[in-house]
Amino acid sequence: MKDKIISALKFRHACKEFDPAKKISEDDFNIILETAHLSPSSFGLEPWQFLVVQNMDLREKIREVTWGGKKQLPTASHFVIILYKKAYFMRFNSDYLGWFMKNVQNLPDEAIFNRSKFIETFQKSDFELMDDRALNDWASKQTYIPLANMMTVAALLQIDSCPIEGFVAKDLEKILAKDFNINMEQFGVSCMVAFGFRVNEQKPKTRQPIEDVIKWYN
Amino acid sequence: MKDKIISALKFRHACKEFDPAKKISEDDFNIILETAHLSPSSFGLEPWQFLVVQNMDLREKIREVTWGGKKQLPTASHFVIILYKKAYFMRFNSDYLGWFMKNVQNLPDEAIFNRSKFIETFQKSDFELMDDRALNDWASKQTYIPLANMMTVAALLQIDSCPIEGFVAKDLEKILAKDFNINMEQFGVSCMVAFGFRVNEQKPKTRQPIEDVIKWYN
Repeated sequence: MKDKIISALKFRHACKEFDPAKKISEDDFNIILETAHLSPSSFGLEPWQFLVVQNMDLREKIREVTWGGKKQLPTASHFVIILYKKAYFMRFNSDYLGWFMKNVQNLPDEAIFNRSKFIETFQKSDFELMDDRALNDWASKQTYIPLANMMTVAALLQIDSCPIEGFVAKDLEKILAKDFNINMEQFGVSCMVAFGFRVNEQKPKTRQPIEDVIKWYN
Repeated sequence: MKDKIISALKFRHACKEFDPAKKISEDDFNIILETAHLSPSSFGLEPWQFLVVQNMDLREKIREVTWGGKKQLPTASHFVIILYKKAYFMRFNSDYLGWFMKNVQNLPDEAIFNRSKFIETFQKSDFELMDDRALNDWASKQTYIPLANMMTVAALLQIDSCPIEGFVAKDLEKILAKDFNINMEQFGVSCMVAFGFRVNEQKPKTRQPIEDVIKWYN
């Protein structure tokens, strides 16, 4: 397993162009989606939604506002936009959080009360998350967890990927509202990720020396 | 491999208490650290640093300001604090980014010029990342990628973990400045993650129905 993990981490790179003739099997892509679905998040609140964009007309519309995905969008086997849930959902006293703890997390009333207090403490003091922007960024940070997990699991299955942040968010959000029927008062865009099979060899991977990145306090 | 992936995703849970007698082998923990080291980030800028806190006096100091890590800190085999690099490093025209592209990414001058322009475009228009707070949050988001990868790889090695956001950031930053010698003008705290071996059975995992989380556009 250790060798397979290291091989997968080295295999993964930001693949800019995919072979449009090669499609990920339904079985493999379901594993990638299940990876997102089972990913952890702060308080387990799953503040995300994933849009799998297979319609090529929709991909072309996205491409027009995505300077970082010009080659990936037309060639990827599967293309995912990752949304985060905004303050509307995520504020400690929202109806949604109460509903979520009761109906998704199946918590008893006392646990809901206690956890709500924790979330309130966290949002009010620890990260000063009381303005909408801070709540939105907190939720958006969580979405980088399934992003990472999907890419790593894809690599373990020898599937290539490319994370994409290079888009004009305001223009993309207009498209998502109009053509994807997403309520942009409730959701924001975190990032995108393309999956498929490479056409070009990957470049040598560069990293800082590990001793510059990891500090031990023994 | 598919079965192992799904098993690992189900095995992973927010483990609140570890068996203090059980230590992760050096070989396994090095794989977890290498996972962080090889994780992707926006423009490959690796805007992070990882503090491995094995000193129990330092852990106790952290514990005093970490309400979400009371059991994990004294019992974890290994404990990691994940820092992000602040605007000081991450602004498109910083000395650091030029140095990084030249000396870590080994890019030729023309590629550095072009990539700097891309980063400038991205920061100025696409995410309106021109204030320090936005640059900090952008960098912090990237750190959730190694966080996720470390937990998933640990689970593949049957090692438990717990991500922790429940701390009083201002108080923690004072400790990091004083006792860890971290320059908090340059670094901020994203989150923490504890690793070890569970003492209690995990609770049943709850998730939203997958069809509420993943939307297909065919």
